[in-house]
Amino acid sequence: MRHDTKGIIFIGDGMGGRPVPALDGQTTLEAQETPALDRIAREGACGLMDPIAPGIPAGSDTSHMAILGYDPHKYYRGRGPFEAKGVGIDVRPGDVAFRCNFSTVEGRKVVDRRAGRIKQGTEQLAAAITEQIPTIEDVQIIFRPSVEHRAALVLRGPGLSHEISEVDPHDPGVDYLDSEPLPGAVDPEAAAKTARILNAFTARAYEVLDNHPVNQQRRAEGKLPANIALPRGAGTAVDLQPLSDRYGLHAAMIVEVDLVRGLGQYLQMDVIEVEGATGGQDTDEIAIARAVVEALATHDFVLANIKAPDLGGHDGNCPMKMEAIAKVDRALACILEHVNFEHTTLMITADHCTPCSVEDHSGDSVPIAFFGYGVRPDDVDRYGERACAKGSMGHLRGMEIMAVLTNMMGRGEKFGA
Amino acid sequence: MRHDTKGIIFIGDGMGGRPVPALDGQTTLEAQETPALDRIAREGACGLMDPIAPGIPAGSDTSHMAILGYDPHKYYRGRGPFEAKGVGIDVRPGDVAFRCNFSTVEGRKVVDRRAGRIKQGTEQLAAAITEQIPTIEDVQIIFRPSVEHRAALVLRGPGLSHEISEVDPHDPGVDYLDSEPLPGAVDPEAAAKTARILNAFTARAYEVLDNHPVNQQRRAEGKLPANIALPRGAGTAVDLQPLSDRYGLHAAMIVEVDLVRGLGQYLQMDVIEVEGATGGQDTDEIAIARAVVEALATHDFVLANIKAPDLGGHDGNCPMKMEAIAKVDRALACILEHVNFEHTTLMITADHCTPCSVEDHSGDSVPIAFFGYGVRPDDVDRYGERACAKGSMGHLRGMEIMAVLTNMMGRGEKFGA
Repeated sequence: MRHDTKGIIFIGDGMGGRPVPALDGQTTLEAQETPALDRIAREGACGLMDPIAPGIPAGSDTSHMAILGYDPHKYYRGRGPFEAKGVGIDVRPGDVAFRCNFSTVEGRKVVDRRAGRIKQGTEQLAAAITEQIPTIEDVQIIFRPSVEHRAALVLRGPGLSHEISEVDPHDPGVDYLDSEPLPGAVDPEAAAKTARILNAFTARAYEVLDNHPVNQQRRAEGKLPANIALPRGAGTAVDLQPLSDRYGLHAAMIVEVDLVRGLGQYLQMDVIEVEGATGGQDTDEIAIARAVVEALATHDFVLANIKAPDLGGHDGNCPMKMEAIAKVDRALACILEHVNFEHTTLMITADHCTPCSVEDHSGDSVPIAFFGYGVRPDDVDRYGERACAKGSMGHLRGMEIMAVLTNMMGRGEKFGA
Repeated sequence: MRHDTKGIIFIGDGMGGRPVPALDGQTTLEAQETPALDRIAREGACGLMDPIAPGIPAGSDTSHMAILGYDPHKYYRGRGPFEAKGVGIDVRPGDVAFRCNFSTVEGRKVVDRRAGRIKQGTEQLAAAITEQIPTIEDVQIIFRPSVEHRAALVLRGPGLSHEISEVDPHDPGVDYLDSEPLPGAVDPEAAAKTARILNAFTARAYEVLDNHPVNQQRRAEGKLPANIALPRGAGTAVDLQPLSDRYGLHAAMIVEVDLVRGLGQYLQMDVIEVEGATGGQDTDEIAIARAVVEALATHDFVLANIKAPDLGGHDGNCPMKMEAIAKVDRALACILEHVNFEHTTLMITADHCTPCSVEDHSGDSVPIAFFGYGVRPDDVDRYGERACAKGSMGHLRGMEIMAVLTNMMGRGEKFGA
């Protein structure tokens, strides 16, 4: 077995799609010029991947879990713990964690789920929550802000459960909800307790935030106040084997969103922050690519993700998605130029499709390509949904990727004699 | 369902590979002229096979198990029982069996793991062990030699376990090891007992062998003495359903290595020995082919394996591997000439890849082709890794092969009405 080879998984978030009539029936990926991606396909081995299974629309969290070899059917108990890890909370097994939005409410009615996309002042708002709501009953309240309107909440204490309904109604113009135990919860008593504490937290957060100086100033400036924190995405934290133990790979992650960052921290990967990686359309893809190249000098394996293509898909905006795909391509051109592929294997993929016609994740297969060391090239000459369908790798599942990649790297363990 | 059709699985051991720069990026299989294999692909249906699962490097034992439909994840408990069966020991469920090498030691230091590749005298050495070490504690010692430096050891008695570490250090120049219970062994007490007995066996074997007349003579001739037997590859024997019961096929096996031969014996296949089948580069491939043709006269199903391609792969010797592939091709030419494919289905495959660049088994997919009765031919016109990737059979797993083959043979059992 080799120990000197390197591996990269480079993910264009939501990069796969469906045919667009306005693009002559091409997908955005097929319509956009992508010289680097095409070179990778041309000199590499292509195929399609179903992140979870054929037809199952994957989340970014479940897809990244599967691609890294952690069966989401077994280990996924909601996004909350990843969100909370991603904003720096030291989540522990048994904690119940939530993604939260700073939102604007009038009474119970949600006016704006993102509090006018608040950019500043959330640190002070979060500090007020932390100070004034340290516990509810026997449960510790841990609350931390992330970028813009985003935050995370962790409940730590005995007898909690993630099997409760959401507080965030997901739509503006309607009342926020009372959390309730889900029908059929495994531990109804724990679910009832958790729902009760969560509802108390929401009410208390309103009391703390509504007249906070940050919101007084926002109102004075004609901005919407961030006068509540609405939790959603409950999840129970579980134990996951560190990735380095699992594969014998010193591993790094370079990503732009808390959800996936949190997974990386969960797996004890080195999560590398990149200046200029905004998670938006304006992200600095060359800075990300350079960070990948640098990380490879000190790590065996790097997973990188550029978020932008997913945004265009969610917005149903094809030109925006195509620009984002061009960004991914430029990042890969930089990696092709600066990495030695005589002992490095690269895999490119999307974590799921986000077709502009769907404006959400779909369960269509995503195109994949392996390039560099240990790869048996095929005849596919460009990277796209239909071109890659003819490749020699066939249809792989997300859960199979790490075995395929580590095999190419010469680091696969033989089963048998 | 038909009962008059015949089936052949013909395996070129380790025949799959990776691109070789010196062969213009072709694999050895692609670079070697293989008219018979190409005819089989051209007139047959092609695909790729993952013996275990995508990216998992398979052993010969686990791959042959899977191809014959015995799930190695469920039934594989180490190579030892197959090795022991393969040298003619009547292994019983509960026995713990080992592959052994006659080796040369000075004190505990291993000078040569193969005792100068000893060719003669091992029968006498083994007889001495059998006579002088009939039991250790309450455990019966069964020891039998195979070709050259190879031998097998079986421990038979109450409370034994295969969850122990190896005695053979696998490298010359270092001390041989004390076997110890593996951390996390299911039955630590049984593992401790087995390790203790194995260490006692190794010490006693040295006492028996070091001054044995065979070794006195070897020393006089300037040869390395075979003065110890080093066990490795512990395995617990399990019950496997006979292949004929499983598929209703009177089955034969024609192979060259003890490991796979032992599996055939385990499955109560008729294991046919062929004069001239050496397991080496010099093997008589035509004798093997003729034995397949003959066996078909009295059997429904024959599995055959030519070992030579694997040897070239392990040695990183492409010309040697290509010559071995030519041997496989000549064997198949003989089979094509002498078998009536109006009622016979042939499958050709490798049990795993052994790329010259890896010098070991890899987890790359292997090319497969089905030919003859019941086959729906496709457009693939030659047998090779990349050509077969375009075939109509897609990507199959080893565990799916017997269903596909028996279906083509018209012997598949209908599931449903």
